[in-house]
Amino acid sequence: MSYIQDFKKYSLMAEKWIEQKVCPQDLPEGVLYEAMGYSLMAGGKRLRPVLALAVCDILKGSRDIVLPFACAIELIHTYSLIHDDLPAMDNDDLRRGKPTNHKVFGEAMAILAGDALLNLAHEIMLEELLSGTIPEAKARAAALISQAAGSKGMIAGQVVDIQSEGQSIPFERLCYMHEKKTGALIKASIMASSELCQADEHQSRALSLYADKIGLAFQIKDDLLDFEGNASVVGKPTGSDTRNQKSTFVTLLGLGKAKEFLKQTVEEAVKALKPIHNAGFLIRTAAYIAEREK
Amino acid sequence: MSYIQDFKKYSLMAEKWIEQKVCPQDLPEGVLYEAMGYSLMAGGKRLRPVLALAVCDILKGSRDIVLPFACAIELIHTYSLIHDDLPAMDNDDLRRGKPTNHKVFGEAMAILAGDALLNLAHEIMLEELLSGTIPEAKARAAALISQAAGSKGMIAGQVVDIQSEGQSIPFERLCYMHEKKTGALIKASIMASSELCQADEHQSRALSLYADKIGLAFQIKDDLLDFEGNASVVGKPTGSDTRNQKSTFVTLLGLGKAKEFLKQTVEEAVKALKPIHNAGFLIRTAAYIAEREK
Repeated sequence: MSYIQDFKKYSLMAEKWIEQKVCPQDLPEGVLYEAMGYSLMAGGKRLRPVLALAVCDILKGSRDIVLPFACAIELIHTYSLIHDDLPAMDNDDLRRGKPTNHKVFGEAMAILAGDALLNLAHEIMLEELLSGTIPEAKARAAALISQAAGSKGMIAGQVVDIQSEGQSIPFERLCYMHEKKTGALIKASIMASSELCQADEHQSRALSLYADKIGLAFQIKDDLLDFEGNASVVGKPTGSDTRNQKSTFVTLLGLGKAKEFLKQTVEEAVKALKPIHNAGFLIRTAAYIAEREK
Repeated sequence: MSYIQDFKKYSLMAEKWIEQKVCPQDLPEGVLYEAMGYSLMAGGKRLRPVLALAVCDILKGSRDIVLPFACAIELIHTYSLIHDDLPAMDNDDLRRGKPTNHKVFGEAMAILAGDALLNLAHEIMLEELLSGTIPEAKARAAALISQAAGSKGMIAGQVVDIQSEGQSIPFERLCYMHEKKTGALIKASIMASSELCQADEHQSRALSLYADKIGLAFQIKDDLLDFEGNASVVGKPTGSDTRNQKSTFVTLLGLGKAKEFLKQTVEEAVKALKPIHNAGFLIRTAAYIAEREK
């Protein structure tokens, strides 16, 4: 199978699982499920669950065990996008080429749908913990994911992002912000899977370094796409960083050096995988992150 | 010790624990902790942790085990208040006599502080799960709390509340809404503690019925306070239900019948406690809920 087919296979696996978990409900609060489902099914890349499932296959772990955790991470990612798009935050009307959640369901429902997705991610993990095998590894994986999503992880990054608006920030602060805002949850998908599949110490250290590097690469590429991407392919207006006077890897390093930094970061990601057998998919993913057009 | 002193003892226990958990951090995202701490320390009654700790004492359980879960519930309660007060939701400027979170920290930070509190509640519970004894009871308690907070519990109630604005809804719908919006989390404080303290089947059933009744009583009293309470004591403008044409127990039943319904509900709560020894504090709490002035 080609890389793209493998990617698709993993992302479909996650999508199917999510779809049966968040299906429409004939209840007085039914619109909540509509709002949650709308953003969950709005055509995301599913990068985080794909990474978790790929790590699972590489470590010969159980997909049945990893899948719910992989999907919980996608729920957390989706809630963060809904809240980020709100008028009080980034005030975005489009996401992946479709109207953002609050544009369709209103602000109140968008806030609640985000809250409900974050909560549901934890409900799913706790449910898994109570059923079947290896409860301790599941508890460690759930704790790792929860920490990555919270005030020490993704939310901290979002706060630093808001506070940095309209001002030039040092390179170190930009890296700190992205490590938390985007990096933490990407890393959690890899490390939670590694925990659930009982990776040994060498594998775990290698995957951790790889995760750091692709998280960084992902953000450099995001900045490049905002600067020179095609809005109709990216699915939202580009150039917003420039308009909002945001510090990015492009504004701080310049276009040429930002591209060089991306290339070097991807090489480091690939190098980190040396101790891992059969890591072809992850190697290819590092390249994909740098090449993607949206 | 008097009832009030006992209540104070439990609420201080929770407050101290929360204070050391959410202390100011000298970090780029430090303002997030300020915003979280502001609403956490804004003088709430701490009813939910108080109930959890009281049940713990009655069942001769371990306060060390119950306390973190009791506080996690208070964090969830606080996040829900921050998000409820937002302009897109109830648009309230005052809460407990102080400016609401978004009035002090801005809307973006209020959304994030709420998100962070919900997330932190789960981080705390997962951390507890990984340390010490009875992991299974802890997992069941955490799952129970998480479900009560989510799309099948508190958030569902909030959605029905929003959808019912400006229209008269049937009595059954009003009860359904409150059972979820307020009742679910109050019940979770009692039942999580009951789970953690290994209540037997009879105790558990009695506490469950008691919880249902005081959750309902709490809401009837809230409606009465909004109708005839003293704004300066309540800590926010009263009469908002009337202005917003909200259906309440007062508008649907009339003032006299709403008071009668409250009295009857409190009696049923007390009656439910028959199989529980030493339930004095809980009996007194049912009365307190009906008598409180804020």
